[in-house]
Amino acid sequence: MNRILYKKSELAHDQLLLTDHRATHILQVLKPAVGDKLRTGEIDGPWSEAEVLKLSPQKVILKIVNLDTPSRPGLDLLLALPRPKVLKRLLPQIAAIGVDHLYLCNAERVEKYYFDTHVLEPGFIHKSLVEGLVQSGDTCLPKVEVVRHLPSFLEKTAFPENRWLLHPSASESLLNKEIAAGRSVLAIGPEGGWREAELAQFEGLGFQPLSLFDRILRSDTACIAALSLAAAKGEACGRA
Amino acid sequence: MNRILYKKSELAHDQLLLTDHRATHILQVLKPAVGDKLRTGEIDGPWSEAEVLKLSPQKVILKIVNLDTPSRPGLDLLLALPRPKVLKRLLPQIAAIGVDHLYLCNAERVEKYYFDTHVLEPGFIHKSLVEGLVQSGDTCLPKVEVVRHLPSFLEKTAFPENRWLLHPSASESLLNKEIAAGRSVLAIGPEGGWREAELAQFEGLGFQPLSLFDRILRSDTACIAALSLAAAKGEACGRA
Repeated sequence: MNRILYKKSELAHDQLLLTDHRATHILQVLKPAVGDKLRTGEIDGPWSEAEVLKLSPQKVILKIVNLDTPSRPGLDLLLALPRPKVLKRLLPQIAAIGVDHLYLCNAERVEKYYFDTHVLEPGFIHKSLVEGLVQSGDTCLPKVEVVRHLPSFLEKTAFPENRWLLHPSASESLLNKEIAAGRSVLAIGPEGGWREAELAQFEGLGFQPLSLFDRILRSDTACIAALSLAAAKGEACGRA
Repeated sequence: MNRILYKKSELAHDQLLLTDHRATHILQVLKPAVGDKLRTGEIDGPWSEAEVLKLSPQKVILKIVNLDTPSRPGLDLLLALPRPKVLKRLLPQIAAIGVDHLYLCNAERVEKYYFDTHVLEPGFIHKSLVEGLVQSGDTCLPKVEVVRHLPSFLEKTAFPENRWLLHPSASESLLNKEIAAGRSVLAIGPEGGWREAELAQFEGLGFQPLSLFDRILRSDTACIAALSLAAAKGEACGRA
């Protein structure tokens, strides 16, 4: 854990009482003394610093001092729903790289049974995303939407102005793309790619096809590669 | 499979007889007719095109016509050995993104038992890397070296001229780094990072610390992110 996270509702005035796996982590891994400072943060709120007030075998009491509120990542990810095993692995990684919105979408090449997984249960998603935030030191929890009908979702959604579609054979590359200030959305297709009609709808909405490099990557590898490249570019142009 | 791969030693003149999982893939997934063309390639050799000469329930005979030989990736990866489960997942992804040399290294923060895994057996490594090549459509098999003593390895190895060390707190970013033409090597540390003495040796050898963006990523996420960024930059500057 690079940052201990808590919900605002867990704070009593400026104090935080921990008795769960976070207490265990503090007691067994961090092993602070009373008076030591820990890196903490409120989910969807400010980073904070916590002074250790009390340590006992089952509980930890911290005094929280709020610091800066981190800026949001400025990046949304529209991802064709991968198979459950892959999704489970990707969720913490996506939260660690950082996105504002995560749209998990149906597509013609997405198998219907992918939607039946426990990985899509809100509690499981929340836990997986927090795991990624705790790793990366961020507090911005991605807002997740599961999209079962892509065409109507695309039609009704107000996407940010920079709209990119990862496409292995696109002539322009994400690396070299000049990006305007402002927020971005990156769409990543299923194994086997989008169908022609899906591509046409994306392009009609101004999603520009961009390639990573001259390789065909598995969609989970492509997701991490493209998302981190987009995040690095966003940060470089001063968004994050 | 985006490309069917074979060893040079499997060719009899220009014909290839397949009876293993590749035959199964051709017969059950690709389902070509006699006379159809398939994307093939010789491991560490040229891309090729294969005409289907004969199909039977257990075997496939192809006639190979060599095409271009792909250029090598121009990139080496020096990776602190991750735990076996993570390594197993990373190997095909590293081959898919493409590296010339993969150095799997010991480091002070690498647990000794990581070296006892079957994942490091040459046969398993080969199979995992070929899986990545088959996905990406490449034929360049990474040359793998398992390094048990890092300091002496660093001392004796002639690394390429662009030497980068991924470091979360480095002030310069990999994205913005101007890279010279020629080959590159990227060093990625273990969970928890390199020790000071290790960092000092890398820096003494001209490895420049570069960051990805303002997040602390798990080392496998960081590996895919940094490697693909380096690959995209290498391709953009005309190496690949």
